[in-house]
Amino acid sequence: MAMEGEGEGKEVPEVLVLGPPWVFSTLESQFPNKFRYLKPWLFPQLPLHQFLTSYAQSTQALLMPVIPLLNSATLDCLPSLKLVVTASAGVEHLNLADLRGRGIAVAYAGNVFSEDVADMAVGLLIDVLRKVSAGDRFVKQRLQPTKLHFPLGSKLSGKQIGIVGLGKIGTEVARRLEGFGCTISYNSRTKKPLVSYSYYSNVHELATNCEVLIICCGLTEETRHMINREVMLALGKDGVIINIGRGAVIEEKEMIRCLIEGEIGGAGLDVFEFEPEIPKQLFTLDNVVLSPHAAITTHESFGGMAKLAVENLEAFFSNKPLVSPYLA
Amino acid sequence: MAMEGEGEGKEVPEVLVLGPPWVFSTLESQFPNKFRYLKPWLFPQLPLHQFLTSYAQSTQALLMPVIPLLNSATLDCLPSLKLVVTASAGVEHLNLADLRGRGIAVAYAGNVFSEDVADMAVGLLIDVLRKVSAGDRFVKQRLQPTKLHFPLGSKLSGKQIGIVGLGKIGTEVARRLEGFGCTISYNSRTKKPLVSYSYYSNVHELATNCEVLIICCGLTEETRHMINREVMLALGKDGVIINIGRGAVIEEKEMIRCLIEGEIGGAGLDVFEFEPEIPKQLFTLDNVVLSPHAAITTHESFGGMAKLAVENLEAFFSNKPLVSPYLA
Repeated sequence: MAMEGEGEGKEVPEVLVLGPPWVFSTLESQFPNKFRYLKPWLFPQLPLHQFLTSYAQSTQALLMPVIPLLNSATLDCLPSLKLVVTASAGVEHLNLADLRGRGIAVAYAGNVFSEDVADMAVGLLIDVLRKVSAGDRFVKQRLQPTKLHFPLGSKLSGKQIGIVGLGKIGTEVARRLEGFGCTISYNSRTKKPLVSYSYYSNVHELATNCEVLIICCGLTEETRHMINREVMLALGKDGVIINIGRGAVIEEKEMIRCLIEGEIGGAGLDVFEFEPEIPKQLFTLDNVVLSPHAAITTHESFGGMAKLAVENLEAFFSNKPLVSPYLA
Repeated sequence: MAMEGEGEGKEVPEVLVLGPPWVFSTLESQFPNKFRYLKPWLFPQLPLHQFLTSYAQSTQALLMPVIPLLNSATLDCLPSLKLVVTASAGVEHLNLADLRGRGIAVAYAGNVFSEDVADMAVGLLIDVLRKVSAGDRFVKQRLQPTKLHFPLGSKLSGKQIGIVGLGKIGTEVARRLEGFGCTISYNSRTKKPLVSYSYYSNVHELATNCEVLIICCGLTEETRHMINREVMLALGKDGVIINIGRGAVIEEKEMIRCLIEGEIGGAGLDVFEFEPEIPKQLFTLDNVVLSPHAAITTHESFGGMAKLAVENLEAFFSNKPLVSPYLA
């Protein structure tokens, strides 16, 4: 089943693609012949486990997005698997202990998306505070100019910003907001020795002392539902939550209640607890800006991720160290 | 016709309010008794010149927004006028030579709005590049999750930004975008000695060397239609224009043509050439984000402007120097 590859006539390595990740079309168009891509979605009549059992018994490498979960039943159908490349910065869809037990390595997005995600966090924050998309709607729906005034927004410059999770993305968000004259505080597992921002060891205290919380952390058992009702009440009725981390870091049902009842001031959300479902109650709230998990979706980031995925796959197939290992 | 004022029983000075400026409701609620406000709009059956001739013959101070023009016919009806307070950073609606000739001073917004305007410029830029309001629409209109993907955006970090007019607002915009890892260049009448950004003495050259133009200058005879078809073609088909300065700095008809024909990549517009009219052709363009001249409309800026207007009026009525004079 060899295809025409880079080395004419030479068999190119096989990569199973699940999902497929959103970035895959970029990857395939940039590197059409680098690998032979196994695409189960081209056989919609075939259950996945049957596809894998029939076509992927010798497959060593898998490329996938952050949804769905990679469960052990799927892994059981892939006896030769040695590498998972996930096109995501988060790895909460992977059971790392299980993978480690099976001797399967993991490569991930590393910091490829960090700048884009930080840019989007700031974009969502400005949108919520300054009603940018509401203003766009207001103009486009108002066919005749009237004396009707658009509601006032809230000033970003000078705000007290709380970053939840000061990794690469959180740090990039903080750097951007410093340029706006904002004051930065943060919460993370441990105080960062070289960082001058105020540190709060618990997120409730951070919320009490901030006007905005920006969720930049990954999803783990520790961070799941970390932003609960109490934290939101501590943030207060003018407080704004931005989430570009993972949906389930916030207790979504409680957040919706707080938004509807005015117990927090607004939210800008790129991620949701039960993606791809987005709660319809959020659709009618004026103080909420929604984004279709698009914090990473630029031509530049997709090009970068495609290149990084290919570099990891090439390293693996040449027995070299992975370029962005999560689990080596 | 005295009203209960701060000094009980004392007659408070009279201020004519034209427009009224958007900020006036904030001002009046914060300072209800500081002045006696003359409000022609409460007499819609009375032509303005007749209102002025009947009620404003001894009026010394005028508060107004940037629209409409303050023409000499209006000034002729105000023989006692000595001060115009405009609730705007721009003064293109005032004939300064005429005012000077009549011995009328002008106070303006100074830098009260600069941070908010700069925040909005960045917000519009992120929105155009990263499709924030389009994403919000996409989510809210998509009632069932589908496999349909939202189109990719363009990365802000690292972009070449051209600032047109490096005054207070332009400088604030530049400072913010440095935090995003952008490279800043600028055009202004003269090179700023203490600024390290690349200077281009003409805007065409700036456009040739940049991916984004942000219009931060005021409207003068020199800047009117400065952004013409040639400048837009130099910016190029992926280029983005943000305008938070004044609409007429751009040749609007040409910009619309360039947007429709893909000769530039997108635009984020808070101001328009013939406000309050906004060309309807812009309403259907996916690559355009529109804002209802809302770059200054925050509670904080309105509070600041109300305070500044009152301080100028108080200074004037106590024969002290104006706090933010444009023409003293």
